[in-house]
Amino acid sequence: MSYITDYIEKNKQRFLDELFALIRIPSISSQTEHKPDMLKAAEYWKKTLLDAGADKAEIFTTTGNPIVYGEKTVDTSLPTILVYGHYDVMPVDPENQWVSAPFEPVIRDGKIYARGADDDKGQSFIHAKAFELMVQTGTLPCNVKFMLEGEEEIGSSSLKTWCADNKELLNSDVIIVSDTSMIAEDVPSITTGLRGISCLEVEVSGPSYDLHSGIYGGAVANPVNILCKMIASLHDENGKVKVKGFYDEVEIVSNEERRELAKAPFSLEEYKKSLNINEVWGETGYTTTERTGIRPALDVNGIWGGYTGEGSKTIIPAKAFAKISMRLVPNQDYTKIAELFKAHFESLAPAYVRVKVTPLHGGQGYVSPIDSPAYKAAQRAVKESFGVAPVPFRSGGSIPIISTFEQVLGAKSILMGFGLESDAIHSPNENFPLSNFYKGIETVPLFYKYFVEEYSKKQS
Amino acid sequence: MSYITDYIEKNKQRFLDELFALIRIPSISSQTEHKPDMLKAAEYWKKTLLDAGADKAEIFTTTGNPIVYGEKTVDTSLPTILVYGHYDVMPVDPENQWVSAPFEPVIRDGKIYARGADDDKGQSFIHAKAFELMVQTGTLPCNVKFMLEGEEEIGSSSLKTWCADNKELLNSDVIIVSDTSMIAEDVPSITTGLRGISCLEVEVSGPSYDLHSGIYGGAVANPVNILCKMIASLHDENGKVKVKGFYDEVEIVSNEERRELAKAPFSLEEYKKSLNINEVWGETGYTTTERTGIRPALDVNGIWGGYTGEGSKTIIPAKAFAKISMRLVPNQDYTKIAELFKAHFESLAPAYVRVKVTPLHGGQGYVSPIDSPAYKAAQRAVKESFGVAPVPFRSGGSIPIISTFEQVLGAKSILMGFGLESDAIHSPNENFPLSNFYKGIETVPLFYKYFVEEYSKKQS
Repeated sequence: MSYITDYIEKNKQRFLDELFALIRIPSISSQTEHKPDMLKAAEYWKKTLLDAGADKAEIFTTTGNPIVYGEKTVDTSLPTILVYGHYDVMPVDPENQWVSAPFEPVIRDGKIYARGADDDKGQSFIHAKAFELMVQTGTLPCNVKFMLEGEEEIGSSSLKTWCADNKELLNSDVIIVSDTSMIAEDVPSITTGLRGISCLEVEVSGPSYDLHSGIYGGAVANPVNILCKMIASLHDENGKVKVKGFYDEVEIVSNEERRELAKAPFSLEEYKKSLNINEVWGETGYTTTERTGIRPALDVNGIWGGYTGEGSKTIIPAKAFAKISMRLVPNQDYTKIAELFKAHFESLAPAYVRVKVTPLHGGQGYVSPIDSPAYKAAQRAVKESFGVAPVPFRSGGSIPIISTFEQVLGAKSILMGFGLESDAIHSPNENFPLSNFYKGIETVPLFYKYFVEEYSKKQS
Repeated sequence: MSYITDYIEKNKQRFLDELFALIRIPSISSQTEHKPDMLKAAEYWKKTLLDAGADKAEIFTTTGNPIVYGEKTVDTSLPTILVYGHYDVMPVDPENQWVSAPFEPVIRDGKIYARGADDDKGQSFIHAKAFELMVQTGTLPCNVKFMLEGEEEIGSSSLKTWCADNKELLNSDVIIVSDTSMIAEDVPSITTGLRGISCLEVEVSGPSYDLHSGIYGGAVANPVNILCKMIASLHDENGKVKVKGFYDEVEIVSNEERRELAKAPFSLEEYKKSLNINEVWGETGYTTTERTGIRPALDVNGIWGGYTGEGSKTIIPAKAFAKISMRLVPNQDYTKIAELFKAHFESLAPAYVRVKVTPLHGGQGYVSPIDSPAYKAAQRAVKESFGVAPVPFRSGGSIPIISTFEQVLGAKSILMGFGLESDAIHSPNENFPLSNFYKGIETVPLFYKYFVEEYSKKQS
């Protein structure tokens, strides 16, 4: 579509300058010292939407960070697309590992280097500029709404409440989100699933203080040894999680969908090499991609107890702790899984010790159908701009707000991400390829166009 | 023996003043800032021995802290007793938990409160004053040698070398050591066994960096989960250590000795209550006292890996670590056990991970026969001074230098300790009952007397 590429070509440098101005606002949501930056970023977004041609744009204050809402109505009989993004970013530490300052974006080797370059300033700004393109070229084919939050990196709690309070305002036919990655630049993919998550902390207590391991060793149960035994019993020899009831609600993925998912290119050798491991591990009967994409998992994220300094201190530690999280697949409810885990873990405790299980945070998983008008539109759009048909891909990660959208707003989300695994989001030297930034701006108008087509096909 | 009690009664206050002067020297061996205090303490001991009536006393410099040697020869045809003690003490932290200053001894409730009050200044000074008593009352019945080191709390490495270099000088018929505890003031006991010890650190490595547990969870083996599984497999369901070859050399204690050891009073209910545990644990077929006294044990002293801060960080940790120590019984060689453990633990490692096992320190166990002239002498002496026959007691703890004495000097040690479990050695508010200090000074001359008797009985 030449009107798209023409417009991008003409405005290339300005698009980048405008994105850089957004990136320069250090809107780190987890650090209170950056509170004023949250409002600055929200105001920048409001102006961006109005300049692009929104009918209106406003900032909603919340008990947390502000939410930006904007809209443009073309014709109420046409479908409505709701764009979601977030203007908050992760902290930058360890700051000394950054090659260039995290909030002063620079281009190196065709990539934008900065905190937020990808997650999610770079990716969400694609939608702002694509929206501007459609408005300015008179090609916006449907109604559009934008919502941008400032708490994605800290749990989206204000957005949850705000969505519930503004259902009418947010009424839409599909939600489009660019906050995920594709497999590779030459292997575009669309994320069709996210895992849920349930995090807990466990504590095993034995004697009331650390004991001399000479005087008591062999006669008093050691809480660290017991914790190890309890953790060891959480998987069977086939890599299955042994928490009672864990698999009861797990979605059974059809063979057809498994075949479709298997099309995503994957090299086991490269995978092992990149992680520096000799062997992969996991549930018998599933491939590595399936193990993270369509199957749940349990991992210890941290463990501690007793003496961990230099040399020896020969004690029986009074307590031992672990942080355990489970990644969940569709239909597994994270609160129920947390309860099942708690009951199961407590039941494992021998009489020698006391066990405490504390649920931490959690979130539901999400799965997007691959036969919806929105998915088909995304597929067509990505194929046209990238030159290769995208593969559906179930990510092992979690974005809990996506399932909230479905529950509260009753709308499915399309996760059309333009990031790459190598973008180092959350890490020092976050980056985003310039090519994907511009390709994204090219893809979005195509998505709008094909969505309206697919949508009317379905209606007729 | 009235000459003993008379002499003590007359010199009571001076004995205490002299002990206090020794205690006031802050001879903490693990802190280099106290290096000058080590020499001060050694010089104080040299003077103490000469004042008491030693023929000679000298300070041997070593690459570490000085060793004090003193001797008095009565008649070369008589047996020789070698007294061992140490003038170094443990650090005092946490200092704010001390009720009175650690190096300013005070009497409260009939106890001396200070660092070193028991371990080992109080206990070793008993021997100095008993020696003085015998010399001054003309009752020293045999030859005597003293050796006092300043590195007991940090591994006795200079003493090991010094013993090997001075075998002739240290030639003796028995070594007497007061550096252990008795069961209770009304249940005197003599320590007849010490366990050996072998300490190691293990490291389990998986991927080369911490992985996102969403993206990789379920497909990549988690080093913490694997470490837990490996540790869990180190004990069987009967509480036996499963390290291959672990029990091969374990001394089988005769039923007769087990019956004798079982005479030591023990209340399981009080034991559990004092530790705040519901159940004891250990090797099937042995009592709690036997589990620590005559059987070996394996404990994790510390474990760590992954995220241990507040909240969650959902990662698959790249590495997991544990400190593991084994308490050993006679005939188990600590270097061989360390090798067996290393081989066994490495053999447990699945292909998913790499395992590194690093031996830390260790020491041999020790057992003292209960039919030797020296043991009988100690038994008679304690019975006479305390009014109750002492029970033989195998301590679960370790004093590695004792087995070195046997190997290098070819002499058995008698562990006639006057401390109590409640003396809080190594902890804040270390204390030593005044009564045990004076009872000790009363017991030692009796031990000398009966040792000469028992010794000549055996010779004839």
